[in-house]
Amino acid sequence: VVYRGRGASVAARLGAVAALTRSVGGADYRLPHTGVMSYAADAPKIPAGAVTSEDADLIEHLAKQGRVRLHLTLTPQELPPVESYNVIGDLKGSEHPEQVVIVSGHLDSWDLGTGAIDDAAGIAVAMQAAQVMKQLGLRPRRTLRVIAWMDEEGGLIGARSYVQQHGAEIGNHFAAVESDLGAGHAMGINFAGPPQLQALLRPVASVLQSSGAGTLRASEEVGSDISALTAAGVPSFSPIQDTRFYFDYHHTAADTLDKVVLRELQENGAVMSVLSYALTNLAVDLPRSAPRPPRD
Amino acid sequence: VVYRGRGASVAARLGAVAALTRSVGGADYRLPHTGVMSYAADAPKIPAGAVTSEDADLIEHLAKQGRVRLHLTLTPQELPPVESYNVIGDLKGSEHPEQVVIVSGHLDSWDLGTGAIDDAAGIAVAMQAAQVMKQLGLRPRRTLRVIAWMDEEGGLIGARSYVQQHGAEIGNHFAAVESDLGAGHAMGINFAGPPQLQALLRPVASVLQSSGAGTLRASEEVGSDISALTAAGVPSFSPIQDTRFYFDYHHTAADTLDKVVLRELQENGAVMSVLSYALTNLAVDLPRSAPRPPRD
Repeated sequence: VVYRGRGASVAARLGAVAALTRSVGGADYRLPHTGVMSYAADAPKIPAGAVTSEDADLIEHLAKQGRVRLHLTLTPQELPPVESYNVIGDLKGSEHPEQVVIVSGHLDSWDLGTGAIDDAAGIAVAMQAAQVMKQLGLRPRRTLRVIAWMDEEGGLIGARSYVQQHGAEIGNHFAAVESDLGAGHAMGINFAGPPQLQALLRPVASVLQSSGAGTLRASEEVGSDISALTAAGVPSFSPIQDTRFYFDYHHTAADTLDKVVLRELQENGAVMSVLSYALTNLAVDLPRSAPRPPRD
Repeated sequence: VVYRGRGASVAARLGAVAALTRSVGGADYRLPHTGVMSYAADAPKIPAGAVTSEDADLIEHLAKQGRVRLHLTLTPQELPPVESYNVIGDLKGSEHPEQVVIVSGHLDSWDLGTGAIDDAAGIAVAMQAAQVMKQLGLRPRRTLRVIAWMDEEGGLIGARSYVQQHGAEIGNHFAAVESDLGAGHAMGINFAGPPQLQALLRPVASVLQSSGAGTLRASEEVGSDISALTAAGVPSFSPIQDTRFYFDYHHTAADTLDKVVLRELQENGAVMSVLSYALTNLAVDLPRSAPRPPRD
């Protein structure tokens, strides 16, 4: 991702007239694997593109035999921004409505496919958490806030707006959960925050063990849209997913609904539901990390 | 293949203004799986195309909800024919130079990929059969003829020319072998001809058993380019290959050299070499089927 995102400016500083990145996806179906890139202010804005791994192999092979000339026809364009929104729904807490537990995914997708695994699946399981609570007639003690983040792919635009607008209430954000690594088999829960979270999560992991999702894993970042909240000290969580096939389809034309296996999506829905039930009803406060600057 | 090849004319007779075929390949990477099609003389020549399985699913889903309108932008064009050639090399027989054993693959490929598995692999193993004989200092009793057939994809054009030009010598064609199903693990030998061929091939199968290629299987057709020879009664053979992944890549942009596993290609080279050595040196004649009209 660093090569794709910043490679063009690094190459331009060295005199390159264009930059191509070998696709980083796992599929071998000659699919270019694309995504966001940006230009540094101090370097010429040279054309940049992704080539398939097969074509990168070919270019490497030819380059060993002599000088290689490439003619690039690059069609992408960046259109002006338009107004759009995070979509937010609250299930109000009965005892601490001011305390918020976010469950979320992102609403936009990269443009080649339909975004079924990146990240409609994440939104589906976030909505599922609230839906299950309603279906079972449970009222959470804290507010469960379902968020479909807007414009993750363009640079966390919706997430940044949320933090700007809710900066004063960060202390009332009890926890944040995001699912943004597809719909693959759920194996447990990632958590970002103080190590004591692990002991507090153990009962949740026990409940999820029977669906194969009983693992707890400490992680520095658990989801890009909630990373600013994580940095602000909000205990943060995501499902641990089997991502062996995720990057075969991610940001390609093949990210379509048929890639979602219902049973595995349901496993992720179970993680989101059990975890968010626990977080909204926990009898104690969660330990929080000291705020640090958000990552670039 | 029948749907793709003849579907447009069948649909046109029923009043269709265009025909789309669901891609038949095994991959789920939103790749259209293409290939030759033709128009019947008695039907309007309507546009025809292949859609990916994902898009076919989507169209089906939408069609259940109401009328579906499609706008087609089809860019393929058929260019006028140009002169081209079968490439033929003979390793002359020491005792019966007039008797010919063909080992072959086809030289052209469908145009999206580079044709590594369809059918550069076939040509590689056909050449390997002659190369091994040279390397080992063996001179075959009959002539070993390596053929790289031209324009298989356009309708067996090179193969038809060969039969036209060599029609009088068909009786001297002792056997014909083609490899045209990729480079996957070789499991044995297909044969087309009288059932007595099976007993004659048993020693060959025994030699190949240790590389996993000891199976013998009777088949009506064993290779498209040699099908006219098969129909004329020439005993015909091909490697039995593991084709589980062949149609994932076949006739797509992803048919590139990285799909060829060297060890599996070598197994196919072993089948071609051992089989062609046996056929060129066999002490007896092979039984031949009565000629029948070639298939359409």
